Amino acid sequence: MVREHALYNGKLLLEKEACLPITNREVQFGFSTYESLRVIRSHPVHLEDHLIRLENSCRGIGLAHPFTQEELKAWVYKLIKIDLLEEASVRILLVGGKEPMCFVTASPLLTYPENYYTQGVGAITYEGERLMPSCKTGNLLLNYMALEKARSSGGFEALLVDRKGQVLEGTRSNFFAFRDGKLYTAKDDEVLLGITRERIIQATKILGIEVVYEAPLAKDLHAGLYDELFVSATSMAAMPISTLDGKTFKAPFERTNAIKALVRSWELED
Amino acid sequence: MVREHALYNGKLLLEKEACLPITNREVQFGFSTYESLRVIRSHPVHLEDHLIRLENSCRGIGLAHPFTQEELKAWVYKLIKIDLLEEASVRILLVGGKEPMCFVTASPLLTYPENYYTQGVGAITYEGERLMPSCKTGNLLLNYMALEKARSSGGFEALLVDRKGQVLEGTRSNFFAFRDGKLYTAKDDEVLLGITRERIIQATKILGIEVVYEAPLAKDLHAGLYDELFVSATSMAAMPISTLDGKTFKAPFERTNAIKALVRSWELED
Repeated sequence: MVREHALYNGKLLLEKEACLPITNREVQFGFSTYESLRVIRSHPVHLEDHLIRLENSCRGIGLAHPFTQEELKAWVYKLIKIDLLEEASVRILLVGGKEPMCFVTASPLLTYPENYYTQGVGAITYEGERLMPSCKTGNLLLNYMALEKARSSGGFEALLVDRKGQVLEGTRSNFFAFRDGKLYTAKDDEVLLGITRERIIQATKILGIEVVYEAPLAKDLHAGLYDELFVSATSMAAMPISTLDGKTFKAPFERTNAIKALVRSWELED
Repeated sequence: MVREHALYNGKLLLEKEACLPITNREVQFGFSTYESLRVIRSHPVHLEDHLIRLENSCRGIGLAHPFTQEELKAWVYKLIKIDLLEEASVRILLVGGKEPMCFVTASPLLTYPENYYTQGVGAITYEGERLMPSCKTGNLLLNYMALEKARSSGGFEALLVDRKGQVLEGTRSNFFAFRDGKLYTAKDDEVLLGITRERIIQATKILGIEVVYEAPLAKDLHAGLYDELFVSATSMAAMPISTLDGKTFKAPFERTNAIKALVRSWELED
């Protein structure tokens, strides 16, 4: 792995040359969309799904651009080839405006220690609603602040709670919780339609777990009505939660880890 | 006016070199604050107020940085001097994180044709609530989308309406409306504390206009309960609204223009 290049509108640059002009209005307003994906054994995992979601995000916020899915795909493969990427995270960034910009960059693959999966991670709840939750955009201040708060107390993730007290999703993850053997998660239109979330739901079908599309209430999570919680994301697959706002959930997280194993097994298939 | 430089953490650069690394996490999350101010006759208008608000924005979102107000002030004066700025808009951008970045850049002074003030401008209402309205941050997607919608129908500004139906502020302005001779505007904690808004309120005292801190409801504006509307901002001073969602408000906007004249007269005083 060399990892020193980036692509800007298909043009090869050194990564350090890939930067955003600060006088550009769309840069100033965060009028942008993005995707992050995993490269495993030089294979961009679920690339098609990421490109479709990127296009949905653009449509959602009205970001017009001239780049075709075929071009974006070719640029991702080009970066993988040029920088000999075997394992990496790849980010596609689209900035709107009169002269849209597309950047493709790579960073080391984001992985977590194995004990995160066996022992679980800490999480907190954080009140706040994302603007246009189904779109992945540069409008991420809420996510940043919520995650900072979680980290400042040693936590791994913050879960966003809406005005109704529903726990919808994490700052960079979807959220799931078991109650009476069923798996609860927010409705599709309330959250980011995670590509891993979709795989989680596929896994529940194989494992015979019923999914209920109803976001858990924070107070019900605190009251112990749910007995196994996890977050999902490209980098995490399914990551069990051991504490939420100080309330403990006990290992082993067998259902979460069974789901995780299935989700990971599908990464090289597409 | 030369206008070809920028300052990065106090260091002089060419403006075209002033850019944001796209792999920087705080850039990706829009974890930033900013101020825009007018330079008139080489004088940075209300610079102290802008620096105080910048600091409040940083405090609001938890953006720690090592730059003192004295340094920021010196950098603004340095750019004015080096680029011989007589009339300009100057922007101060702070990006947070482990290695905070401060950029000072200039652009041509934003002005509007005189008939905007005599004939008024078009506006629309747009449903949406800003995150942390008192802070000026890079989290501006809502503002961008709302303004695009206004512009696509030939309008000048979009006014944001909250879940209670209150018209709080514009995408880059504060909002005021006269009803029975009194001037209504949102409460301080619901909106950006505009530096021009503060001057508007000073002007009302001189003009003997009573200010009521209660945001007009969109339905009451549509129903004609208010008879003169305007938005305020650094670039606009007070700008009268001639149509809101198609409803007409008639010129001459005498009270608005009287306020505007006073506000502009104070620009060279501090």
